[in-house]
Amino acid sequence: MSTPAAESVAQKVEELQVNGVAQEAKEEDEDLVTPWEVTTTKATGIDYDKLIVKFGCRKLDDDIIARFERITGHKAIPMLRRGMFFAHRDFSAILDRKEQGKPFYLYTGRGASSGSLHLGHLVPFIFTKWLQEVFDVPLIIQMTDDEKFLWKDMKVDDAKKMARENMKDIISVGFDPSKTFIFNDFDYMCPPFYENIVKIWKVVNANQARSIFGFTPEDCMGKAAFPAVEAAPCFASSFPHIFGAKGKKNDIPCLIPCAIDQDPYFRMCRDVAPRLKASKPSLIFSTFLPALQGAQTKMSASEPNTCIFLDDTAKQIKNKINKYAFSGGQQTLEEHRAKGGNCDVDISYQFLRFFLDDDEKLEEIRVKYTKGELLSGELKALAIEEVQKIVGVMAERRKTVTDATVDEFTKIRPLAFEY
Amino acid sequence: MSTPAAESVAQKVEELQVNGVAQEAKEEDEDLVTPWEVTTTKATGIDYDKLIVKFGCRKLDDDIIARFERITGHKAIPMLRRGMFFAHRDFSAILDRKEQGKPFYLYTGRGASSGSLHLGHLVPFIFTKWLQEVFDVPLIIQMTDDEKFLWKDMKVDDAKKMARENMKDIISVGFDPSKTFIFNDFDYMCPPFYENIVKIWKVVNANQARSIFGFTPEDCMGKAAFPAVEAAPCFASSFPHIFGAKGKKNDIPCLIPCAIDQDPYFRMCRDVAPRLKASKPSLIFSTFLPALQGAQTKMSASEPNTCIFLDDTAKQIKNKINKYAFSGGQQTLEEHRAKGGNCDVDISYQFLRFFLDDDEKLEEIRVKYTKGELLSGELKALAIEEVQKIVGVMAERRKTVTDATVDEFTKIRPLAFEY
Repeated sequence: MSTPAAESVAQKVEELQVNGVAQEAKEEDEDLVTPWEVTTTKATGIDYDKLIVKFGCRKLDDDIIARFERITGHKAIPMLRRGMFFAHRDFSAILDRKEQGKPFYLYTGRGASSGSLHLGHLVPFIFTKWLQEVFDVPLIIQMTDDEKFLWKDMKVDDAKKMARENMKDIISVGFDPSKTFIFNDFDYMCPPFYENIVKIWKVVNANQARSIFGFTPEDCMGKAAFPAVEAAPCFASSFPHIFGAKGKKNDIPCLIPCAIDQDPYFRMCRDVAPRLKASKPSLIFSTFLPALQGAQTKMSASEPNTCIFLDDTAKQIKNKINKYAFSGGQQTLEEHRAKGGNCDVDISYQFLRFFLDDDEKLEEIRVKYTKGELLSGELKALAIEEVQKIVGVMAERRKTVTDATVDEFTKIRPLAFEY
Repeated sequence: MSTPAAESVAQKVEELQVNGVAQEAKEEDEDLVTPWEVTTTKATGIDYDKLIVKFGCRKLDDDIIARFERITGHKAIPMLRRGMFFAHRDFSAILDRKEQGKPFYLYTGRGASSGSLHLGHLVPFIFTKWLQEVFDVPLIIQMTDDEKFLWKDMKVDDAKKMARENMKDIISVGFDPSKTFIFNDFDYMCPPFYENIVKIWKVVNANQARSIFGFTPEDCMGKAAFPAVEAAPCFASSFPHIFGAKGKKNDIPCLIPCAIDQDPYFRMCRDVAPRLKASKPSLIFSTFLPALQGAQTKMSASEPNTCIFLDDTAKQIKNKINKYAFSGGQQTLEEHRAKGGNCDVDISYQFLRFFLDDDEKLEEIRVKYTKGELLSGELKALAIEEVQKIVGVMAERRKTVTDATVDEFTKIRPLAFEY
């Protein structure tokens, strides 16, 4: 647990970092991480340690993971214990509440820009589902169809349709409808939600929004208005059907599991929360699941060959990994046996780090591949097996998800928690 | 009726004027008319002819008033025939629809910033009530409590409360609940309304918003987001409970009676409507009821002695007009008899122009006062009588307006029109 002094320094750093991040990333010739773009020039991917300093968040270190395991009595899953979830803001405040039996909730979301989700999209949801089981708290999932409409050349109805299709994929991760509320902005917009949006609008000026998000005067009005829409679900009063009168005080905080590129929204939200007399959201940030072609970019639905989709068949998964997954192995068999492979850039190995539960087996793979004992094709076969397993379970579940299932999750209703 | 060529020139002028109006007004040392400030240095008040050129709207001339009277079979009320409603955009399009029996609706609104309304606030509502009776169409009244919250140092609940109190005063003008829907933004916000807001957000950029409204980067995000909230009720699809499936196509246009300072919102809305495949709103603009102290400013609730409030007693009205109403008369009785009074700057006379129905009597007053036959005290007595009459009727009605009455007007329900 961090000392008050450390917290205060971190707070200071956070404040200093709140401004100017978006521009900075563009100006320097280095990793670019914004809600709309993620790229790096390095084959090992984004330098996440640098990002922690730049964004002013904190490393999710062994101490806090140990505390999490102690308080919840659950062993951290691979994504957490191997640093795929690598940073946080105030995660300890959520652990305090868990320890004290005080209420909190999980909030995450997705901007639907493709019909079927890929594995990279699903990483935060797989993690969130596990977190919800461990914490046993309400989960709220926002589909930002309004954002997609504003940013893309897309009609409102298409944005809504895409959000609904994506909901089906998300539900396939295995969420419990009695504990999970999913909504899309276009269909949920209502007075309590709008009130929080307007309150956020009032305390951030256009200069600040520009420096946080990099908006330009040529951007449409909606882009500047939208960040408050993604921030407002951090306040429990946006959901009276879930939190009732107790939620009105906005002292039930949320924990947001998300990819690090979404941080600007919540930095802004944490900055304004005290002025709105609301609890600050806590965050836990994931790295990006790399594209098949290598860690320079994340999986991107607009380039299908970089992705494993939820509706890819076992055979397609096999072919894609065999054909596209960037290999850290050597050019020839002899060379590979002699020099060994490089796990740091090998995408099949990176997939195993995300999904293979068995630590010993993973370490054995790493050692053997590095020594050249394990060949690239063999490593790919192992990755294929794990990815097929993960996708297979969800794809099976996906078959049972109908419009009625979606309606069940989106219905305005209390969840199985009382406040 | 205007020719296509004239329409096209007016259109062109409108387009040219859409940008740069807000700044212009501030830069030149002349009348300032924005949604947030109205001042002039001239005792005769705003130069409305200049404003028509500057805003790019059109004069409401005798021809169009005659056409209105011919089509509706109603004589124009004083405010209309004497130029208090002095300008318009596409009013003839609404008259066309009336002539053809095609549907349209009235839309107006108010930003509540004081507990009780003053006579200046009520002018557009008195006119709108009369227009509704003449046209027999639905009327929608928006209370922009969100705007007041964003612009003023005010809590959400206070903004909502003030909107509700103001609704009671507005209802006292005599609206028919079966044909009138009143809403405040904080309580009405809903998916169809939000969808139109987001659509407007998408087609206006921050530069344009700045040039139309004069926002600066120091202004909060909400100010830039708000104009779409005032513009969205111009589209019938914002009110499915009133216009049903027919409204979805946004081809039922509205006519907006309002004070000229609200024009920037609707210039913007008219500019974006074609891109949203929606009908452009038509507008009919009023001048401002001058402050008691003179036509350099409009009545302002923040300076109570400039106003006649709806809850002023007959005695208070008498005292205020006697004490504060700027007189165009001379300093001494002898001088007045000799030189006569000046109706153009005399506030009592201006009030009579707004409210005294009898044209002959008004002309008689003008002639006598100008000649010095009628004294300032006598003119004031005539104004007091008319204002007491107008306010008296509304104040009586106000006593019967309860929270239940407000609920009746704000209820989400169909009105007495089918589409």
